[in-house]
Amino acid sequence: MKKKAQIIGVMGGGSASPEAARKAQRLGELIADQGWILLNGGRSAGIMEASAKGARSRGGLTIGILPDDHAGHTSEFIDIPILTGMGSARNAINVLSSRVVVACPGGAGTVSEVALALKTMRPVILLDFDVGELFAGAEKNGLLFRESTPEGVVERIKALLAREP
Amino acid sequence: MKKKAQIIGVMGGGSASPEAARKAQRLGELIADQGWILLNGGRSAGIMEASAKGARSRGGLTIGILPDDHAGHTSEFIDIPILTGMGSARNAINVLSSRVVVACPGGAGTVSEVALALKTMRPVILLDFDVGELFAGAEKNGLLFRESTPEGVVERIKALLAREP
Amino acid sequence: MKKKAQIIGVMGGGSASPEAARKAQRLGELIADQGWILLNGGRSAGIMEASAKGARSRGGLTIGILPDDHAGHTSEFIDIPILTGMGSARNAINVLSSRVVVACPGGAGTVSEVALALKTMRPVILLDFDVGELFAGAEKNGLLFRESTPEGVVERIKALLAREP
Amino acid sequence: MKKKAQIIGVMGGGSASPEAARKAQRLGELIADQGWILLNGGRSAGIMEASAKGARSRGGLTIGILPDDHAGHTSEFIDIPILTGMGSARNAINVLSSRVVVACPGGAGTVSEVALALKTMRPVILLDFDVGELFAGAEKNGLLFRESTPEGVVERIKALLAREP
Repeated sequence: MKKKAQIIGVMGGGSASPEAARKAQRLGELIADQGWILLNGGRSAGIMEASAKGARSRGGLTIGILPDDHAGHTSEFIDIPILTGMGSARNAINVLSSRVVVACPGGAGTVSEVALALKTMRPVILLDFDVGELFAGAEKNGLLFRESTPEGVVERIKALLAREP
Repeated sequence: MKKKAQIIGVMGGGSASPEAARKAQRLGELIADQGWILLNGGRSAGIMEASAKGARSRGGLTIGILPDDHAGHTSEFIDIPILTGMGSARNAINVLSSRVVVACPGGAGTVSEVALALKTMRPVILLDFDVGELFAGAEKNGLLFRESTPEGVVERIKALLAREP
Repeated sequence: MKKKAQIIGVMGGGSASPEAARKAQRLGELIADQGWILLNGGRSAGIMEASAKGARSRGGLTIGILPDDHAGHTSEFIDIPILTGMGSARNAINVLSSRVVVACPGGAGTVSEVALALKTMRPVILLDFDVGELFAGAEKNGLLFRESTPEGVVERIKALLAREP
Repeated sequence: MKKKAQIIGVMGGGSASPEAARKAQRLGELIADQGWILLNGGRSAGIMEASAKGARSRGGLTIGILPDDHAGHTSEFIDIPILTGMGSARNAINVLSSRVVVACPGGAGTVSEVALALKTMRPVILLDFDVGELFAGAEKNGLLFRESTPEGVVERIKALLAREP
């Protein structure tokens, strides 16, 4: 594992369709292949479980920022569980700690993370997650992007990392 | 002021158009007239300032959940400033502490509050704040509503308070 | 109730001896008599319950900053329950939001609040709560005080409010 | 680096005497030698900087739970900076996320971490940090320990990890 690696946040629902889970797992693999660290919500469910599983399978490092104050719901594929005991308030930490945020399909919690990320000027890449025209301004300003494949997401992250200091 | 009054959250942008500010101020007045407590983000700007000003003008009680760890940005119309020192993580407190959440026009921060409110099953009323089809499920399930006047919002709140325990 | 009233934080254990509870209740009465707002941890137990009961009995306003994300443990004597859903992380909010912090007998949670208050330069008055020599520097610098009666605490608060802007 | 390694929290002041810094650095080295992950407050100062420097020098992994919402104060020896933007409220996360907490000399912030750790039943080892008789109960119950050398701390951690599941 490389030290001082970039941290890529992967957000998404606690439940996930088979296709969404498959793409999240693949995204986790690709993130690990790049030597990036994967950060997510840490639970053993949905996009969190799938993306951590993918990253772990390639030897990547996985960080989970958990809403819980105990380890009971933590994914087995999380190397570093950060227990916040703060419920959804931890969503703010998820995005602050990520260099780039990828939003996979999810519900209101995932929308809150997209919104908080944009508010703190973290670039957001939507992977098959439709937020309509809600953040059209951010799209225009090159802060919000849409992709439909894990490979496309990774290319987009590379471009973002190259663009900014 | 009535004790054990209902707490109504009013969210919205730190900057506001004249019309949005006018409606927020009117909403504050009507909330105070009902004997409800107004809760918002507490800052001396935009929807926060306008709604607190309205409530205060009618003798209502106003609570501000500030992102700051100091009082420098607090609206003069806030009776009870709660300094969280937590930035946007305090958005989760805003909605948890509100019986009903009203979302006036705002940016990404306001979207995050709508999303967090729905996630924790707080009813949300959009006052001229268009979130597209993003939360269509919540609209169908009677958790998200759209209104175009402060008076309409208050009637909606009354119905919600009557409906639930 | 006076608007823009000073907020006085009263901290202490979730369980309390009869004497400690009696003094906390009396302190709540005196705080209300001064027109100050009482802020505490909000739960229906120990020092929290006793101090809120005292303040309420004199028509004072009571604010509870709860660790919970639901209302189930809230004292009936709390007028304004702020649900943080953050567990002990909310201790930081308790002290940031208080003009002066009074620490009644308690356990590790109360010690954490004394420490956090001093760290953020909030004056702390210990009411029968012995912290040994741990904060001797703060005592020398006029930030930490010891009292043995609710009346003494109130006189100390008055002096502190007069001293500072 | 070993996956699923134990996370050891090292707390202490933002300023440190030469001797305290030397011991914290040595403690960091020993923690890394054991294959444990070091977690601290993440800033480039005092005990935080020294302990991270020690762990890094032996190839250990270092996590910093920062109070800040930006990277400006982060130690160069931190591999994984978690930006909370929550000020001292993040102290609760520090201790929740640690399997064992070591408290080096510090001020009120460090005392708050000792207190929060004990409240959540995390074992605490004091390395030259005198808290008087404040937590005498925890000492009796085998939750709080005193050591005067980094080597003694590591032996104590080993015993604690062996004792508990």
